[in-house]
Amino acid sequence: MVVGIEKAVSPANSVVSSARKTPAAIPSSDFVINLARGDPTIYQPYWRRMGDKCTVVIPGHDLMSYFSDPGNLCWFLMPELDDAIRRLHRVVGNAVVDDDRYVVVGTGSTQLFQAVLYALTSPHNPDTEPLSVVAAAPFYSSYPEETEFLRSGLYKWAGDAYAFDKDGAYVECVTSPNNPDGTIREAVVNREGGKHIHDLAYYWPQYTPITGKADNDIMLFTFSKATGHAGSRIGWAIVKDKEVATKMVKYMELSSIGVSKEAQLRAAKILEVIAEDCVNSGPDKEDNFFEHAHRLMSERWEKLREVVKRNGVFSLPKYPRDFCNFRGKDTESSPAFAWLKTKDGLNCDNLLREFKIVTRGGPNFGVDSDYTRISMLSVDEEFNLFLERLAAIKGSINGN
Amino acid sequence: MVVGIEKAVSPANSVVSSARKTPAAIPSSDFVINLARGDPTIYQPYWRRMGDKCTVVIPGHDLMSYFSDPGNLCWFLMPELDDAIRRLHRVVGNAVVDDDRYVVVGTGSTQLFQAVLYALTSPHNPDTEPLSVVAAAPFYSSYPEETEFLRSGLYKWAGDAYAFDKDGAYVECVTSPNNPDGTIREAVVNREGGKHIHDLAYYWPQYTPITGKADNDIMLFTFSKATGHAGSRIGWAIVKDKEVATKMVKYMELSSIGVSKEAQLRAAKILEVIAEDCVNSGPDKEDNFFEHAHRLMSERWEKLREVVKRNGVFSLPKYPRDFCNFRGKDTESSPAFAWLKTKDGLNCDNLLREFKIVTRGGPNFGVDSDYTRISMLSVDEEFNLFLERLAAIKGSINGN
Repeated sequence: MVVGIEKAVSPANSVVSSARKTPAAIPSSDFVINLARGDPTIYQPYWRRMGDKCTVVIPGHDLMSYFSDPGNLCWFLMPELDDAIRRLHRVVGNAVVDDDRYVVVGTGSTQLFQAVLYALTSPHNPDTEPLSVVAAAPFYSSYPEETEFLRSGLYKWAGDAYAFDKDGAYVECVTSPNNPDGTIREAVVNREGGKHIHDLAYYWPQYTPITGKADNDIMLFTFSKATGHAGSRIGWAIVKDKEVATKMVKYMELSSIGVSKEAQLRAAKILEVIAEDCVNSGPDKEDNFFEHAHRLMSERWEKLREVVKRNGVFSLPKYPRDFCNFRGKDTESSPAFAWLKTKDGLNCDNLLREFKIVTRGGPNFGVDSDYTRISMLSVDEEFNLFLERLAAIKGSINGN
Repeated sequence: MVVGIEKAVSPANSVVSSARKTPAAIPSSDFVINLARGDPTIYQPYWRRMGDKCTVVIPGHDLMSYFSDPGNLCWFLMPELDDAIRRLHRVVGNAVVDDDRYVVVGTGSTQLFQAVLYALTSPHNPDTEPLSVVAAAPFYSSYPEETEFLRSGLYKWAGDAYAFDKDGAYVECVTSPNNPDGTIREAVVNREGGKHIHDLAYYWPQYTPITGKADNDIMLFTFSKATGHAGSRIGWAIVKDKEVATKMVKYMELSSIGVSKEAQLRAAKILEVIAEDCVNSGPDKEDNFFEHAHRLMSERWEKLREVVKRNGVFSLPKYPRDFCNFRGKDTESSPAFAWLKTKDGLNCDNLLREFKIVTRGGPNFGVDSDYTRISMLSVDEEFNLFLERLAAIKGSINGN
C-alpha cells in the first residue's frame, strides 16, 4: 500500500542525496533530484562553518558499558544528553520539560514511535482487540507501515482519523507541524479512551512560530529535523506517565538494548552548543542556529512561492503568520516539506518525475495523487536545480 | 515467563556494572555484584592502554545524511565498516566473507535477530501459520521475549528445539559457542523447510578455539562481545541470500531508518586496528587484542575452576581442547559466561543471591533452577569479589 523508504532510496531509480557526493559534479540535465526523503543536508554548511565547536573526541576505551545511568528509569540515556535536551527545550520554549517528565532516548523517533505503541498496549489481554492507530490525512507516510509490518496483535493501523468510527480504545498520532503539509494540528477524534502521540519533530523555530510550550502526554522529537543530524539516529520522547515511560524503556531493551552512546554523546554536545549560542547571542545573530536555519528556510520558501506563482501549474498551502515567542516577532511558517498540488488534478508526483524530480505522492499520505511532498531540506545545488526545473514545467506543458 | 533485562538492571534490586563507577570505591561486604548481564567491561583496561590508537574525532558537520552508501543494498552501512568487518573475519578466519556475501549492520545483533525473523517470514500469507522459532535448551534467554513481545502474526516462539515436533516451516536459532553454556553447537531439528539463524556472537579466539570459517546462510556477530564495546550497539549479519538481506534492510528502515553513523565509524576504526595488530604482531604478542583477551579469560576460568573444585558445592561444564587456527595451537574454551550448577539440586541463582551475587537462573534459559548463568566479563574488582564470595559458600552452608 505504502511506497516507503525503499523505493525512495533504490539506486536503480534515482540518485539520492548524500553527504559524500560532490554537488559541483552534478550534471545538470541528467541528474535525478531525489526530494522524496527529508534528508536535512541543508544545514551542513552551517555546521562546517562552526569548525571545532561541536567536535567530539572519543578514545577507544570510552563508552564501553551497556549502562549509562543505572539509577535512571531510562538506564541507557546518557545524563549529559538528558540535560542537553531539557536545557534546549527550556531555551527554545517549545516543550514542557519539568523534572517530573521522563526523557526516553531512541534510535531516531521512528523507534520511539513503535516503543509508544508497545507501551500503550502492553501487557496485552489476548481477548481484547488490537488497539486502533489513526492519524488525520494527510498523515506521515511511514505510520501505516511502521504499525503494520510485523502484523502485531497489539495494535493495527486504522487509517484516517477523520473517518474513524470504531468503538473502543485507539491512539491518534498528532503530528504538528504536520508532515507532509506543515499545518498546526490538534487531535481530531477526541473520544473517551483515546490516547495521543504528539509527533513534534518539526516544532522548532526554523519551521514554524513557537507559540507556546507543548505539554502533551507523549511528545516525540528527533535530532534529524531539529539540527540536521539524521545520520546519528537520535530521537527522544518526553513522557508524563511513569508507567508509559517504563514500558517504552522495556521496548528499547527488547528491540536494541538501548541506543548508541557515541550518537548520544555527539547529540548532547551539539544541543548544548545550540542552547548556549541561543542564550549568549540573542535570537538575531548569525551564530544562533535556529535564526540562521529560519533564514535559510524562509528564503527557500520565498523562491519556491515565486516560481509556483509564476508558472501557474501548482498551488501551495498558505500558513497563518503568528508571533514566535523564541524569535520575539511575527513569523511565517517555512515547513520542512512543500506540499505541492497540481491545479488541474494531474498526478503531481508523476508529472515531476518527467522532469527528473523524485517526490513522494499524495497516496502515500492517504490523499489524492494531485498532491505530492517535496523535501525543502536538500543541499543548495539540488534545491536550485529543482526550482529551475519546476519553473520550466509551465512552458513544457504548454509546448505539448 | 522470561526474566529479562529489566530485572537485571533494576536499580531497586541491585547495583549494576557501569563504566562510570569507580571500582576502588566498592564497599566489599554490602556491594551487590551483578553478573546477570554480560557487560564486557573486562576489556576496558586494554583499550585504555591503547591510548589514542583507536580515538575517533567527529566534527559537527560530519555524518549528517541518512545515507552512507546509496549504491549498496544496505544503504546505511558505512563502507569503512563493511571493509573492516570483512577484513577482521579474514584475519581471524572465523567466517566466510566472500564478496558475494551481504553485510547488514544493526543496532546490536538484537535488532538484527528481529530483522532476520521479519526477513524469513515476509511477505506474509495471512492463511499460513506464524513461523515457529525454536532453539535447543539451554537457549539465550532473550530469544523467547524478543520473538513474542509484539505478538507478531509472522512468527512465534515454539520453545526447545529438542522437543519441537510440529510440521511445517520453522527457524532454529543456533548459538555457537552457546549462550549460556559455551558449547559448540549445530542445528538439532534438521527437517525439510527449516531455516537457521547462526548467532556467532562468541565465535572469537578469546572464547573458543577457531576451528574453521563458519559458512552458514545467516550469521550474526556483535561488536559488544567481539571487542567489549557494548555501548556502541553495533552488530552485523553476514548473509548469503540477496532476498533475505534485502528484507533485513527493509526491517532496519522501518524500525529505525538505519544505524548510528558515529557508532559505525568508531566500530570501523577499532576493528581495523585489531586486524592490523593481528597481522603485524603475530598471534603471540601482547598488543594483539585477541591474544590478550584470551589470556584474561583463561586466567579467570582457571581461578574459577579452582574455587569450584575446592568448595565442592557446584559444578561447571567441561569443554574439549581443540586446535585454534588463529592461535596456531591447542586451546581450551574460556566462555563469556560460566554455566554453574549446584550439585545438590538447590536453586543456584537464589543461593548466590544470598551472597549478594546476582546471576540469571536456569529457567530463563529453558532449563532447571539448579543452573545459573554468570558473566565472566565484569571488571577485575567485581570478578575477584565474586570468587571470594563463591569460595565462602561451602563454609557458610556447612556452618548452617
